Amino acid sequence: MSTHLSAQSKPSRGDAAAKLAALRASMQTHRLDAYLVPSSDEHLNEYLPDNTKRREFVSGFTGSAGDCVIGLEEAVVFADSRYYEQAETEVDTRCFRISKVGLEGHPTLTEVLVAWGQGKTSFTVGFDPATLSVEQFRQLEARLKQTAITLMPVAGNLIDGLWGEARPSSPAEPVFTLPEAITGESVAQKLGRVRSAMAAQNVHLLPVTKLDQVAWLFNLRGQDIPYNPVFLAYALVTPKEALLFKEASRLEASASKALRGLAEVLPYEAYGETLAAYVGKTQDSLALVDPSHSAMETLTRVQAAGGQVLESATPLSLMKALKNDIELAGMREANLKASRAKIRALAWLSQQIQNPPYTTKKRLKPGEGVTEESFRLVLEGFYAEEADYFGLSFNTIAGAGANSSIVHYGTPDPQKSLQPGELFLIDSGVQFRHGTTDDTRTVVMGSPTALQRKRYTEVLKAHINCAMQRFPKGTEGARLDGVTRASMWQAGLDYGHGTGHGVGAFLNVHEGPNGIHRMAKEPLQPGMITSIEPGFYEPGWGGIRIENLYAVQELPGKPYPDGRPCYGFETLTFVPFEKRLINKNALSPAQLRWLKAYHQAIFKRLAPTLSKAEAAWLKRACQIGL
Amino acid sequence: MSTHLSAQSKPSRGDAAAKLAALRASMQTHRLDAYLVPSSDEHLNEYLPDNTKRREFVSGFTGSAGDCVIGLEEAVVFADSRYYEQAETEVDTRCFRISKVGLEGHPTLTEVLVAWGQGKTSFTVGFDPATLSVEQFRQLEARLKQTAITLMPVAGNLIDGLWGEARPSSPAEPVFTLPEAITGESVAQKLGRVRSAMAAQNVHLLPVTKLDQVAWLFNLRGQDIPYNPVFLAYALVTPKEALLFKEASRLEASASKALRGLAEVLPYEAYGETLAAYVGKTQDSLALVDPSHSAMETLTRVQAAGGQVLESATPLSLMKALKNDIELAGMREANLKASRAKIRALAWLSQQIQNPPYTTKKRLKPGEGVTEESFRLVLEGFYAEEADYFGLSFNTIAGAGANSSIVHYGTPDPQKSLQPGELFLIDSGVQFRHGTTDDTRTVVMGSPTALQRKRYTEVLKAHINCAMQRFPKGTEGARLDGVTRASMWQAGLDYGHGTGHGVGAFLNVHEGPNGIHRMAKEPLQPGMITSIEPGFYEPGWGGIRIENLYAVQELPGKPYPDGRPCYGFETLTFVPFEKRLINKNALSPAQLRWLKAYHQAIFKRLAPTLSKAEAAWLKRACQIGL
Repeated sequence: MSTHLSAQSKPSRGDAAAKLAALRASMQTHRLDAYLVPSSDEHLNEYLPDNTKRREFVSGFTGSAGDCVIGLEEAVVFADSRYYEQAETEVDTRCFRISKVGLEGHPTLTEVLVAWGQGKTSFTVGFDPATLSVEQFRQLEARLKQTAITLMPVAGNLIDGLWGEARPSSPAEPVFTLPEAITGESVAQKLGRVRSAMAAQNVHLLPVTKLDQVAWLFNLRGQDIPYNPVFLAYALVTPKEALLFKEASRLEASASKALRGLAEVLPYEAYGETLAAYVGKTQDSLALVDPSHSAMETLTRVQAAGGQVLESATPLSLMKALKNDIELAGMREANLKASRAKIRALAWLSQQIQNPPYTTKKRLKPGEGVTEESFRLVLEGFYAEEADYFGLSFNTIAGAGANSSIVHYGTPDPQKSLQPGELFLIDSGVQFRHGTTDDTRTVVMGSPTALQRKRYTEVLKAHINCAMQRFPKGTEGARLDGVTRASMWQAGLDYGHGTGHGVGAFLNVHEGPNGIHRMAKEPLQPGMITSIEPGFYEPGWGGIRIENLYAVQELPGKPYPDGRPCYGFETLTFVPFEKRLINKNALSPAQLRWLKAYHQAIFKRLAPTLSKAEAAWLKRACQIGL
Repeated sequence: MSTHLSAQSKPSRGDAAAKLAALRASMQTHRLDAYLVPSSDEHLNEYLPDNTKRREFVSGFTGSAGDCVIGLEEAVVFADSRYYEQAETEVDTRCFRISKVGLEGHPTLTEVLVAWGQGKTSFTVGFDPATLSVEQFRQLEARLKQTAITLMPVAGNLIDGLWGEARPSSPAEPVFTLPEAITGESVAQKLGRVRSAMAAQNVHLLPVTKLDQVAWLFNLRGQDIPYNPVFLAYALVTPKEALLFKEASRLEASASKALRGLAEVLPYEAYGETLAAYVGKTQDSLALVDPSHSAMETLTRVQAAGGQVLESATPLSLMKALKNDIELAGMREANLKASRAKIRALAWLSQQIQNPPYTTKKRLKPGEGVTEESFRLVLEGFYAEEADYFGLSFNTIAGAGANSSIVHYGTPDPQKSLQPGELFLIDSGVQFRHGTTDDTRTVVMGSPTALQRKRYTEVLKAHINCAMQRFPKGTEGARLDGVTRASMWQAGLDYGHGTGHGVGAFLNVHEGPNGIHRMAKEPLQPGMITSIEPGFYEPGWGGIRIENLYAVQELPGKPYPDGRPCYGFETLTFVPFEKRLINKNALSPAQLRWLKAYHQAIFKRLAPTLSKAEAAWLKRACQIGL
């Protein structure tokens, strides 16, 4: 899945007006004409702990991306195409305008600010430097150059001031260590590689503010954040030292022991001052600040202490993305287990819907038969039965009928029973203690319509075209995005989200720097994990998405004529596609060969581990292209 | 063609050492450890007038891109994959190292500088601010941050000091005006649109330093530069005024008249000081400097005069790329004429090679039969017969056998006769007074080998896949580059140049901002012209390239489901492909349909305008896929 919805309870509608009034009073005290509430928090998390869900608190909008800006008269929530429908449902449109970015007539944040500032001699936009990334600040700054608009950092978040007693407390779950048998590399080795990379750039200080990077570096995991097995912390690496900013009391004994001699543990709150002190320690110190991974706070701390800043990509990002052999083995096993659980749930669904028969036109009453929510419970039950299960990697999406067209429908409905002829889209993933999973299947209840088959087959062709694509070293995700969409574009179809995202190893289900989307500049390299997940969505009609995870691998055989090696994808997900939705005649011989080999591999790998009834279902489901 | 070779005479090998010695003496006077000689000149031209071919003068290398840097002990020429072979041929490797950028172990300019500066406490790299683009300077500056390396602007080009009497004089050809019947838009209208764009960015000064932008803006043309119908000049646009920096004596009377009341004409040499004076005139003046289209000289002039600079893309670039209906009509006609000339030349070639028969194994002696050069002369003769012919748009590439693998082989050989079984690659283009052309055909002498057919068919499939691709508004060239290469990557093939470039309307054969290559971020829009030119090259074996020009157009019919219009390509080039090299069985039904329709269109459009013998040849050549 290309992003997720929070499963947290929503603020009730109606109190938006009261919150805005209080916020505007606070803005006037600070002499602000507008206040920016980014989607992100101090660690630029995608999945936020409850106590930093500030945009959600003020606007009601729970999307994983989309900022909000409040002016004295008007307030705007920005939603990308994944969230057009959801924002409409969640936001009180008497108080907020929803800007559906990407559609004609729907302005970007900059355009809204420029319009608000038009004709004014000065216009001050406040923001919390702790929650705005350096990159976002730089972009805003460049676009607002030569306007009357000033960006004004305001210490202390104004939203936190409104929250009062109702603000959830900060999470403080225990932190545990992962053995080298799972990580494949010791903390000492990782620190050595990081320090070599720092030396190559003459960098003396590396602040680490992204939680998955801290977790990866120290081979630690936690559960402070929903779905991400990470913990609230900062880190600082110097040529000789490593500091972990995390209350020592939260570290399990084995974790403290594992860090001994490698890293000093300081309180979370000591990060800012310690960073400043370390800048002061070293003459001509140069700190590497990754503008897309750090909030303005880190940059300004370094500069205020007299340090120099190199704004550049952190080496941690690529190091974490390139999985070693042990991590790859863990990812293979994790995805095989998650595939088995999904197969069992689909087999269960198939058995349930035999009675009442879904091939008739009979409509079920609410609560009769399988519902979105009952399927979710069964699926998650099967996940939990697998060894080393740790939790979900995002909230399960299980949308039937019109709900399947909401790209990140996150609230399976216990009242919504699956109706004959409906599409049912299930996007789910799991954290095991050795790997992370994410896959999507779309099935049909009973007999499909010709249009359902036609569109499913187009999405499938797009998926297979990418999955079987070979490419030379150096190929960026953006070009593979074009490869994937080409056949759909030809058929007049497209989807409003990326084709693929990186996935961590028992870490975040979304990670960079690799991806397959229009802006993806990072060349794909062996060891990277990516999803391939084309789709099609039509509000009201329904949605289709077909998603597997793949590892990039070097293919055996001849390199390209200029010597560049040839790369391709190794499949990690093994769940059959919906054969009733496939028009085999629309596939090329190469696509059909891929499809057949894939289903043979699924049956061979998983049938021996299933019950007799489940294996029988899988056998029928895998009879595709044979 | 994706770039060109200069047809100028090469400096003789052997004198490189003497030049380097003189340059190094001059560097020591200026206390420089290295001196940068960019490929470009004061106008960042791709095709340079002889008197600014400084990199060629010092190194011998004539490629259209590739900088050169001279240290006190070592000197390096940088060549991209188009020029690997050519640089080896042209550069005296006793004096220069050739860095084949993109290959393992071949460093970039930055990497060479960093290596040279390693372990030194200071290392000064001189450059001429008049010939280094702002973008290139910024990139170097960022990459050399925190090294001991300083970039030092040196007024007066050191190469010019070496040149002495031998330096060619500056071109000063007459400048003429184009009527609105050809440009489709008056100068007053263009200035109006430019000023609106300036107002939208609060810009008061727009320096124009690219020659094609000056020519486009004022509806003027000249012939100071080989192949580009432009003239040496600068321009400056303010909200009320427009200045053209060009000796008034060079303007034809009609050109002077056409500018009256719209633009003031000042001497070329007055540009820098006038720019500074205009900065001083306006309080808080903001000048727009396009970092990829302006040399550092312009930026530093504005800043030294106390002006502010907005570094941003100039609006002229996109305005020029979006051809109006009259320009499109001119481009259609130009490419139809150029197609006719190429068809006539290919028909002539076919007739010539019947005797001696090329199907036998007989090898010709040098000078016997058709040579690369004799074919070029015939082709260019047919071009010149067309009405409104103005000149070539680049030097004709006509390479047979192993020469066809040199991507920009620019010196057709009068001794090289076409041998049975050889591939012959002809890449050529013309300037007409109403449009610019560029196309490439690869033919085979006699019977092809199985490998020639296999590879040609793969290149053809890549061409057709791009040419028939539909795509939604907003699609960038990078994604179409992936679409084009996908089938070749699958077959283990690739090519080391971009898939397509923009083309001007009776202007430069290479223009931005649109392109189809890995870095092409500009969305394709109706009115843009692009080449599609996949290829395959194997040194020694030979080369294949298949290139047409296309206009981007909005397709009739339904838009994409989210409302974005559907775009596709309108063919401008009408020359048959080499049917003996096509394996029809390897094409998909859709590819075959496209191929058939294309050849039917060629015959229908051009047969009526040919001689009986030529039409008969065309009929046979177009019997593809029927």
